[in-house]
Amino acid sequence: MSSNNTNDQVKIGAYLLERLVQLGTHSVQGVPGDFNMGLLDLIEDHPSLSWVGNSNELNAAYAADGYARIKGTIAAVVTTFGVGELSALNGIAGSFSERLPVIHIVGVPNTAAQGAHSLLHHTLGDGRFNAFENMSKQISADSAILKTKQGAGDAIDRILVSAIKSARPVYLALPTDLVHDTIPADALKKALDCSADDNDPSAEKYVLKVAQKHIAEAKSAVILVDACAVRHGCVAETNDLINKSGLPVFATPMGKAIVDENHAQYGGIYVGNLTSEDVKNVVEEADVLITIGSLKSDFNSGNFSYRTPKESTIELHSDYTTIGYSHYPGIGMKKLLPKLSDLLSQDGKKRLEQTKKVIPKFENKLASEDKSQVITQEWLWPRMGQFFKEQDQVIVETGTSSFGMLEAKLPAKTRWVSQVLWGSIGWSVGATLGVALAAREEKLGRTHLFVGDGSLQLTVQEVGTMIKHGLTPYLFVLNNDGYEIERQIHGEQRSYNDIPAYDHSLLLDFFGNDKVKSNAQSHRNDAKTSEKQYCKVETKQHLDELLKDVKFNKPDRIRLIEIMMRRGDAPKALKRQAEATGSANKYE
Amino acid sequence: MSSNNTNDQVKIGAYLLERLVQLGTHSVQGVPGDFNMGLLDLIEDHPSLSWVGNSNELNAAYAADGYARIKGTIAAVVTTFGVGELSALNGIAGSFSERLPVIHIVGVPNTAAQGAHSLLHHTLGDGRFNAFENMSKQISADSAILKTKQGAGDAIDRILVSAIKSARPVYLALPTDLVHDTIPADALKKALDCSADDNDPSAEKYVLKVAQKHIAEAKSAVILVDACAVRHGCVAETNDLINKSGLPVFATPMGKAIVDENHAQYGGIYVGNLTSEDVKNVVEEADVLITIGSLKSDFNSGNFSYRTPKESTIELHSDYTTIGYSHYPGIGMKKLLPKLSDLLSQDGKKRLEQTKKVIPKFENKLASEDKSQVITQEWLWPRMGQFFKEQDQVIVETGTSSFGMLEAKLPAKTRWVSQVLWGSIGWSVGATLGVALAAREEKLGRTHLFVGDGSLQLTVQEVGTMIKHGLTPYLFVLNNDGYEIERQIHGEQRSYNDIPAYDHSLLLDFFGNDKVKSNAQSHRNDAKTSEKQYCKVETKQHLDELLKDVKFNKPDRIRLIEIMMRRGDAPKALKRQAEATGSANKYE
Repeated sequence: MSSNNTNDQVKIGAYLLERLVQLGTHSVQGVPGDFNMGLLDLIEDHPSLSWVGNSNELNAAYAADGYARIKGTIAAVVTTFGVGELSALNGIAGSFSERLPVIHIVGVPNTAAQGAHSLLHHTLGDGRFNAFENMSKQISADSAILKTKQGAGDAIDRILVSAIKSARPVYLALPTDLVHDTIPADALKKALDCSADDNDPSAEKYVLKVAQKHIAEAKSAVILVDACAVRHGCVAETNDLINKSGLPVFATPMGKAIVDENHAQYGGIYVGNLTSEDVKNVVEEADVLITIGSLKSDFNSGNFSYRTPKESTIELHSDYTTIGYSHYPGIGMKKLLPKLSDLLSQDGKKRLEQTKKVIPKFENKLASEDKSQVITQEWLWPRMGQFFKEQDQVIVETGTSSFGMLEAKLPAKTRWVSQVLWGSIGWSVGATLGVALAAREEKLGRTHLFVGDGSLQLTVQEVGTMIKHGLTPYLFVLNNDGYEIERQIHGEQRSYNDIPAYDHSLLLDFFGNDKVKSNAQSHRNDAKTSEKQYCKVETKQHLDELLKDVKFNKPDRIRLIEIMMRRGDAPKALKRQAEATGSANKYE
Repeated sequence: MSSNNTNDQVKIGAYLLERLVQLGTHSVQGVPGDFNMGLLDLIEDHPSLSWVGNSNELNAAYAADGYARIKGTIAAVVTTFGVGELSALNGIAGSFSERLPVIHIVGVPNTAAQGAHSLLHHTLGDGRFNAFENMSKQISADSAILKTKQGAGDAIDRILVSAIKSARPVYLALPTDLVHDTIPADALKKALDCSADDNDPSAEKYVLKVAQKHIAEAKSAVILVDACAVRHGCVAETNDLINKSGLPVFATPMGKAIVDENHAQYGGIYVGNLTSEDVKNVVEEADVLITIGSLKSDFNSGNFSYRTPKESTIELHSDYTTIGYSHYPGIGMKKLLPKLSDLLSQDGKKRLEQTKKVIPKFENKLASEDKSQVITQEWLWPRMGQFFKEQDQVIVETGTSSFGMLEAKLPAKTRWVSQVLWGSIGWSVGATLGVALAAREEKLGRTHLFVGDGSLQLTVQEVGTMIKHGLTPYLFVLNNDGYEIERQIHGEQRSYNDIPAYDHSLLLDFFGNDKVKSNAQSHRNDAKTSEKQYCKVETKQHLDELLKDVKFNKPDRIRLIEIMMRRGDAPKALKRQAEATGSANKYE
């Protein structure tokens, strides 16, 4: 074993890190443990990588999920064998469900100890060393359990490509005796090819012909953009289709803001029977519905209540296409979309005229009739919509926030970060760390989190990591005294939906102790920690003034804005969704 | 389906709860979710059960682990499908590794939706509904995935018995449509039989003969008590053996305090070559070593450094026995121990005289030569040993605390709660909640947590749950500015072993907001929340005075005692263990 990389040889750990950097990853999430510190040495010493050092592994996985959403490439999270990796699983499973590429790198005991089935700490005590990898395989697109240096580079390459092409997590087990062992470095000279596969030309030609015929014969066609358009890197292709075809476009909750909500052809959110009437009419009366990257989950489809017939739907997916009842496996949208756009550009102007007549106007309208100063769900979301700026990041927790913010119209180039399918409470706090790190790397705008007091408690310590890294997100905490989304579904007056009462005014100072900076004992070499501001808001007027304040609009510190709201108040869409969910899972 | 239980019929959920109550479980840990609230209704309405409502699922699983340790019966944790259950896995795996019976009850979608592979929220988005149960099976002794009401009661009974007899977790998937469905109630009239199986009489007789011969021929024999003695309910039998045999007794780190450390035959902790010389001599020079419930993991055995020959070792386990190289499967200690004790009582007095001559004296000796006021590891632990009282609970986090507290002599009936094998940082904070709840139910003494500032951050929010329930543990936070155990192993000056600086003086007030009590908006019906006290301690004198203070000794409030310690200082045993671990996993 050589401790130095030569021109021809590279440590296995360094090989992995070099690939991550080539793919555009510059922050690595995770928690140290005695089986991963050999890799952490390499990360800390790498000029293009920053070790985040999260407060726990679940939060680290959530942060990786958020980071991948903004960067559009793979995120990395490092944990230690057993105790560390298992804590991350819920976060990794969320990335599997929501289609985000994440590599979960687990430092595992040396190969000799594994072979001898030693009774090491962090094991199950029964000699099984494969239990944890078996668990992770259930939520991974691919995995590599390194046992020798032979083929290690190829295995790393294979799973990285697999993660990006499938938009799903992969798992890497890296033993302590291999991380600094060396392999040939040659392969690194060639970047990994993660581009989408070409479609079979004859099949693709046929599909295009059928699709074009359907659209040409339709009196009205509509485009519906969904999550997988962004997950599979088809945002430009999607926008091209919209512009060239002149067709009206709508978005699902998970597809929000992929298309600029100020676009002349954009009409708002379609979510089955939770949709506003004007949008519903246009979408459901269309003769042809073209869906891009559709992900028809219960919460993303108004509990499966689309009134759009299958026979008149064209579905474009990453690895297949359907037209009506015809299924075309292997025909992926990345390569199909540009050709479809070209075909549809022919009558684009004509269609655009038609679109202008029918497209509903989507605006941030404040309910004016309500004279009360109480901050309501109905008032809050359009008001927040007016506050955002181009290139801001908007993260919404599963709950009142993810439903409510659908009502807000977002500026161009806003990144919409929600977890509608997986819906793990607490996710948004960890995700905000990853989003804010990515936004800083990509020189994007501000980062805004919307989370309820209930969800916040699950992952609250990750605010400390934000402060440690000098990040300056806006943390809007909606304090409605417990788990409001659960109350909407079941147990409105049940105490199991209550939570401990936190004093949010102390949160930033608790997790970011300024006094320690002058502590001579400390060896800290972190970046400058964040300046901090806490605001408690109880009236519409106060929030309105705050959001208009020029100083407040400058993201020069981390801010916690506690918005006091009423129990029992919920966005309209959530109330209807909760009814549907409650009756699908009724207990009597 | 009937919504009321009749005399003959009972809801499946109620059947489960009744069994838990019969087994002595009165607190149920967990987090609400839309697939488990039907069960939570039954828990909240049950006169003998209390719903804990943890801050997240990992903490809930840790709390269940702690609760099971004190109660000596099964603990229960309730989560929701996917998002909830996966967050709990690290805690459940810890209970598997450390041998604690825990039932993980997961509220899952209704059977129809599962059968149709619906794209529900909290799913992986690919129609697989069995992925999560497959994951849990890796860390469960048994599981029941309920699909119909037929056989539901038997399945619940089977896994409960399995959990207790194997001292390991089990998994129950409870669909929303079955929890209130009814089954016959008859079976509940008969309590579950969880007692240990009888040994085969002839085989047992033979084993006893061989064991007795070995011991009779030995010039010196020694008993070594380990974790599984308490996990398999053999504490009384173990003490009986000690008293009747008159033999010297020692404990492993995981077996600490199972035998009263003030017992005349007790000599201290044996942990291979990390052991003090006087103990080492007695144990390693014995002709026969009788181990009870041995669990020879690296951290529990000084990195496998026992100098005790296999041929002169008698190992008593829950389901097998070994004498030298002879293996006797199926001969369990629960039934064997009383018979062995009777056989050995014959020469008990003679042996006791011999024991008194050789047994080392184990005392809380304070290092007196050191005049500095800096609180050192060497000084701290014996001083804490003097502070504890009979029936106190002492929880130590994996790290400096679990190694350091080995130096303290504990009073009789102290419960020693550590996680030496699994060693998941942050575990102790959740475990403290479960321990404190169990201690209150059982009317035991005070609860003390020893945790470093590094480990604390992973699970810190569970302090809020303690306050919500009016619990009054002593939380000793050892502030040594980061992950000291990791620094001892690797990366002493690495910034990846640094953590965000918390202001611990704000912790209790942040997680327990007194102002909210007067909030008319609140519907809280929790028990009275805890009174609170924070102390920062920087000198030996201050800590000494505090520990002597009469008011401080009264557990009438939750206390956070922040003890300022130096980076780089660690208990001797940890320093040696770290060297061994570091060299077994060296990176160069």
